[in-house]
Amino acid sequence: MTTQQLIEQIRIKKSFLCVGLDVDLNKIPQHLLATEDPIFEFNKAIIDATHDLCVAYKPNIAFFEAYGIKGWQALQKTINYINQNYPELFTIADAKRGDIGNTSSMYAKAFFEDLEFDSVTVAPYMGKDSVEPFLAFEGKHTIMLALTSNEGAFDFQTLMVNGKELYKQVIETSKTWKKSENLMYVVGATKAEYFTEIRKIVPYSFFLVPGVGAQGGSLQEVCKYGLNKNVGLLINSSRGIIYASIQEDFAQKAREEAFKLQQEMGQILETL
Amino acid sequence: MTTQQLIEQIRIKKSFLCVGLDVDLNKIPQHLLATEDPIFEFNKAIIDATHDLCVAYKPNIAFFEAYGIKGWQALQKTINYINQNYPELFTIADAKRGDIGNTSSMYAKAFFEDLEFDSVTVAPYMGKDSVEPFLAFEGKHTIMLALTSNEGAFDFQTLMVNGKELYKQVIETSKTWKKSENLMYVVGATKAEYFTEIRKIVPYSFFLVPGVGAQGGSLQEVCKYGLNKNVGLLINSSRGIIYASIQEDFAQKAREEAFKLQQEMGQILETL
Repeated sequence: MTTQQLIEQIRIKKSFLCVGLDVDLNKIPQHLLATEDPIFEFNKAIIDATHDLCVAYKPNIAFFEAYGIKGWQALQKTINYINQNYPELFTIADAKRGDIGNTSSMYAKAFFEDLEFDSVTVAPYMGKDSVEPFLAFEGKHTIMLALTSNEGAFDFQTLMVNGKELYKQVIETSKTWKKSENLMYVVGATKAEYFTEIRKIVPYSFFLVPGVGAQGGSLQEVCKYGLNKNVGLLINSSRGIIYASIQEDFAQKAREEAFKLQQEMGQILETL
Repeated sequence: MTTQQLIEQIRIKKSFLCVGLDVDLNKIPQHLLATEDPIFEFNKAIIDATHDLCVAYKPNIAFFEAYGIKGWQALQKTINYINQNYPELFTIADAKRGDIGNTSSMYAKAFFEDLEFDSVTVAPYMGKDSVEPFLAFEGKHTIMLALTSNEGAFDFQTLMVNGKELYKQVIETSKTWKKSENLMYVVGATKAEYFTEIRKIVPYSFFLVPGVGAQGGSLQEVCKYGLNKNVGLLINSSRGIIYASIQEDFAQKAREEAFKLQQEMGQILETL
């Protein structure tokens, strides 16, 4: 999916919501555990109930890998289900990968070719040659960690280098990489006031924004500082939507939570 | 496996060699492609041919994930084969993971519990709460990226923060984390002279050292600056060993390359 197509979807749906699929077997409704593939059945129900309210799904790869081969099978079924039934949805493999060049190429192959995701999240610590192998894929997007939403973000990301915070240097340097037009950035919602500064460095890029809801970030605040003319934001919500209920009505309740966010986003988009 | 047990194995085998399992179906002997599970068959042959010359195996997770479910099955069979037949070998899941706390916990579960690796490599960018969930596992080891062996290491790792290079700050900060005694560090062999400075910060820690061989690092140089009284080094070689031959004699040739390194290591250990 191209960035332009993503923007069109946002305009059509009046939503820039991304639903995070962090499926924990200890947290899903117990009646699903009797099915052959509880993880996939849960995802399928969530996707069917929310696909018209969001523009992206973000399976969190850790939550699949923790279940070994069965988890990987559920991941494959989930991404196939989205691609076959809702090809207008943007898909994000939340994997935070990054390694030396030939290894990053293998990760890119895993997520872009084998699983056919539109995008994957990557970590910047190993630098240019750890990210460029992802950027090389035409029509795919690489979403690099810049400023994350967790407490540990302040351990290294905000240290001063060359007179600026490391995360700003990371973004600036990444702009010089080959095919950097395929980059998006992870910017946590819990630091909304930082968006102003980041927008000065990358005014046109898309940001994937975790941390709204469960982690305490405010949608209004993020939009105030982070929106650009092409929206430029994908706001992720995982637990706040998928675990809105742990009863048989979980999909309906998930839809209700997604609807609330979509309505709020629709109003915000009107002001753009 | 405890650190003490690892040190004992090094003494017994007169080797601190780690063999990296980066299995690319385009590079393995063609006759294996006719078997049901070429990746596992390749690994099994390499392991049987080298297990007495090395103390660790490091499957590179990207090279399994790139083959989807079949790759994950091959990974499971490979780690099971090592654990069942050569339980004295230290196993490293080279995964470079790192995410917010509850997600890192899932990755830790995947590699420590589901797959039963002794250790996993992690990335530091997201800080304390992205690494501590790995450290919490008793009897397991977390190998954090410090200074890597690739060209991109100079993009961010060597930037100056608080009057020192970022990778030194990363190591220093990590010493304050809960259960930091379970930490080891990735330090690339291509920057041997840096070992002196790093040893001042963590004199007793183990380092996993990639970059000897294919990436140009020198074993002698690394040992000169990096060894401590308990050895404190695991030197990885992947392509130099496993792709020594792409003919039917690949396992024998892999053994010969491993033997050369083990002999060199044996001599170095005599001087300790």
